[in-house]
Amino acid sequence: MSKAAKLSRPYRVENGRKFRLKDVDPGDTAGMKLDKSKAADALEKGVKLLADLQDKLYAQDKRALLLVFQAMDAAGKDGTIKHVMSGVNPQGCQVFSFKAPSAEELDHDFLWRTMKCLPERGRIGIFNRSYYEEVLVVRVHQEILRAQKLPPSLVTKKIWKERYEDISSFERYLSRNGVAIVKFFLHVSHAEQRKRFLERLERPEKNWKFSLADAQERKRWDDYMEAYEDAIRATATPYAPWYVVPADEKPFTRLVVASAVIDALEGMDLAYPKVDEAKKAELEKARQALEAE
Amino acid sequence: MSKAAKLSRPYRVENGRKFRLKDVDPGDTAGMKLDKSKAADALEKGVKLLADLQDKLYAQDKRALLLVFQAMDAAGKDGTIKHVMSGVNPQGCQVFSFKAPSAEELDHDFLWRTMKCLPERGRIGIFNRSYYEEVLVVRVHQEILRAQKLPPSLVTKKIWKERYEDISSFERYLSRNGVAIVKFFLHVSHAEQRKRFLERLERPEKNWKFSLADAQERKRWDDYMEAYEDAIRATATPYAPWYVVPADEKPFTRLVVASAVIDALEGMDLAYPKVDEAKKAELEKARQALEAE
Repeated sequence: MSKAAKLSRPYRVENGRKFRLKDVDPGDTAGMKLDKSKAADALEKGVKLLADLQDKLYAQDKRALLLVFQAMDAAGKDGTIKHVMSGVNPQGCQVFSFKAPSAEELDHDFLWRTMKCLPERGRIGIFNRSYYEEVLVVRVHQEILRAQKLPPSLVTKKIWKERYEDISSFERYLSRNGVAIVKFFLHVSHAEQRKRFLERLERPEKNWKFSLADAQERKRWDDYMEAYEDAIRATATPYAPWYVVPADEKPFTRLVVASAVIDALEGMDLAYPKVDEAKKAELEKARQALEAE
Repeated sequence: MSKAAKLSRPYRVENGRKFRLKDVDPGDTAGMKLDKSKAADALEKGVKLLADLQDKLYAQDKRALLLVFQAMDAAGKDGTIKHVMSGVNPQGCQVFSFKAPSAEELDHDFLWRTMKCLPERGRIGIFNRSYYEEVLVVRVHQEILRAQKLPPSLVTKKIWKERYEDISSFERYLSRNGVAIVKFFLHVSHAEQRKRFLERLERPEKNWKFSLADAQERKRWDDYMEAYEDAIRATATPYAPWYVVPADEKPFTRLVVASAVIDALEGMDLAYPKVDEAKKAELEKARQALEAE
């Protein structure tokens, strides 16, 4: 494992049974003192490494990588995606944001709209929010569940447990078909969210990023934390690990995410495709024809 | 118009009637002597400018930009997309490559598969090949047209002229709905293609990029040039201009493409959204509540 990949290991959850959210400190920086330029340098190196690995992933065209980002508002999802993935060839990278489902989407099973957006072989797919919203916001606001038009007999007390199981089975299926899955919960503290909200309110050019709905959701903080903890406990597996990333210090958050992506790609045994003997003979013929022109 | 935007203007075709492909020299570099580091510096500046504009496009969330890339093999489409668009936030940028259509796609009208991939508001969409293949490869290889299962009475000598018209009308419709369209033909010379093919054949790590089909297509060079010229003449409009970009010198190609994208974005009157008075009052209320916490 490369040094770059190692940084994220302490935050990796593969087996959720013993996981407790309170064991992760949102302000943790692994003892690193990251001034701005040092952090930018380290991230730049990571992004370069990541871009090289992605180039091989694309050339090999066999595997795909799905990155799932979940977090409370202002935890830094958008900024992390921007800073970690800018520099990567967009031809090999697709980002999808999932907002409130449309009427057409509600007329389908809950995985349908995200399934349509899964990354093709050779690509990195990024879900900015994902099917996990189905056990997060939908669990906190059960009126959303009622709007999903499920047959009443299927909506029982077991529905969250069933959804965790369905999600986990689906992720296992994807991993068996060449799609590696890495899930991030950017863990921001209640106090840091307040600070960032106030910033958005105080700086006119950031005003558009703030919605009153965000302030409403903040009131349900504890319910969300419980929902996140339960979801992570139930769906952290070796084939689809969660990374619970301290998110009060943005530069550190980004380094940990870059590290986890590098770790996932390094685990894929990527290499530029080699041509076999038959193809080599064909290429030789083409070369002769071109040289004779 | 910014200096960065100006560079591409000589290669812009808005009115195809007088356009002749032979008037564009694939080796042209506008008199610039681009050594490697100078070119990289200029491109880096362009990409930074482009990334800033794209950030505003995304925040404003009203307009979209569709970039269409067409070219002969080895003209540098993939490399240009990689070098011009890496550095842009992938959250606001989607690349789609169109290969031979699937059976499902053939069961639809010829624009169907690309329409599904049009960029959302606030985003840059990139088509690596596009619906223009329908008047390029399909025209050169008319057996592909026969496989499209069209009612025979609809397949007449006028079919290419009809397709140009349909494409142009479709692009006009998109422009009326907030999607700006910029189309690139990367114009590589016959001799330079030969050189690049030989390079791919001689360097093992580039072998996978070469397919025998590429060499076959090269034999139809003149037919392709005629098809490109006709398509550009028929579909270059002020709302969906073509850029015929000299492509024998890669660094220059990339600068011209970056310049044209900057030109298109600068023409959009982009700005971060402002909040109105009613919203301001709401934000003030939220601020007070947060401060009282």
